[in-house]
Amino acid sequence: MAKLRVHAFSISLDGYGAGPDQSVENPLGVGGEELHEWVVATRTFQKLYGQSAGTTGVDDDFAARGFENIGAWILGRNMFGPVRGAWPDDTWKGWWGDNPPYHSDVFVLTHHPRASIRMAGDTTFHFVTDGIHAALERAKASAKGRDVRLGGGAATIQQYLRAGLIDEMHVAIAPVLLGSGEHLFNGIDLTKLGYRCGEHVPSAAATHVVLVRT
Amino acid sequence: MAKLRVHAFSISLDGYGAGPDQSVENPLGVGGEELHEWVVATRTFQKLYGQSAGTTGVDDDFAARGFENIGAWILGRNMFGPVRGAWPDDTWKGWWGDNPPYHSDVFVLTHHPRASIRMAGDTTFHFVTDGIHAALERAKASAKGRDVRLGGGAATIQQYLRAGLIDEMHVAIAPVLLGSGEHLFNGIDLTKLGYRCGEHVPSAAATHVVLVRT
Repeated sequence: MAKLRVHAFSISLDGYGAGPDQSVENPLGVGGEELHEWVVATRTFQKLYGQSAGTTGVDDDFAARGFENIGAWILGRNMFGPVRGAWPDDTWKGWWGDNPPYHSDVFVLTHHPRASIRMAGDTTFHFVTDGIHAALERAKASAKGRDVRLGGGAATIQQYLRAGLIDEMHVAIAPVLLGSGEHLFNGIDLTKLGYRCGEHVPSAAATHVVLVRT
Repeated sequence: MAKLRVHAFSISLDGYGAGPDQSVENPLGVGGEELHEWVVATRTFQKLYGQSAGTTGVDDDFAARGFENIGAWILGRNMFGPVRGAWPDDTWKGWWGDNPPYHSDVFVLTHHPRASIRMAGDTTFHFVTDGIHAALERAKASAKGRDVRLGGGAATIQQYLRAGLIDEMHVAIAPVLLGSGEHLFNGIDLTKLGYRCGEHVPSAAATHVVLVRT
């Protein structure tokens, strides 16, 4: 059975998946970039952007796992971009330039229809207006037996958690405080939803945990 | 200047400092004991209860730091015991038997007056009915220049955090999910209160962080 997987979702010590005041200048909210220092340093991440440097070890292993056997992606609209409401035009094509690091179909959840966009490197953004179940169905069909990776942000992950649709979730707890922003787990009873901590691997840069269904 | 310090306060991956449904049978709430496995295993903890076994290393170092230069303690009432409302009698003398591991004055926050109780091993429980500032003042006077340790639970720590009175706070993030219970940081903007992560030392059993004032 194809799985829905979350990988490399970073949260602060106080539980925030992004800082406050997300904008074009601060796609991850104020202070949010610090959450991702562990992954940006890795060879896997650097390679996505054509660089040959980068660390290996625990952090890189976790970063790399996030790309294994993935056949399609789902993103929340706020992870795709800062545009809110109806799409004014087709200018915004994601944060990632002409050749985004997905190389598959990417299903973007939105309330506002928009034509699919084909990018370089085999990434195509599709805009799904009929909800999280429909997005998952389309992503699974596109993945042809491989798994689907759910990117974020926090609100999107919460929706899929509450619906019991996430099979495996790697969270990296970064050694920073954000104080406010988008909390990942607030109001979600993970135990009641059937999750437990299946793996716990700390590194100097982050604590990696994998939540799995019991 | 004498400090107010929190040590070895364990929280779950989803941020809970105790599980739901605290009772005599479950002083830490349902599932709460798992939070403390890292510390119970240490030599420092075992020694408190007269045992000579126990682990050494990162976890034990953090456990031991919590007893260095401490001259008095403050506890919330729920950490002292499960009795709620007015004290029916003097039967309840804490969770820790005749010789509690404090060996100093311990100031218990409560709305209900009660005479001090002198225990074996130089521990005396005092019941403070006039608030967190008064308790801190009395604890500092008793500590005679040494620091004061604030034990918990979560609600008591939140009160002292919001009042800006905690100087240093060691939190251990345990690799468990609790799903519900007493959340430590919900609704508290630690960044705005001036805290940052001053130390981050992961072990196989827990991620240790020390929050300090910037």
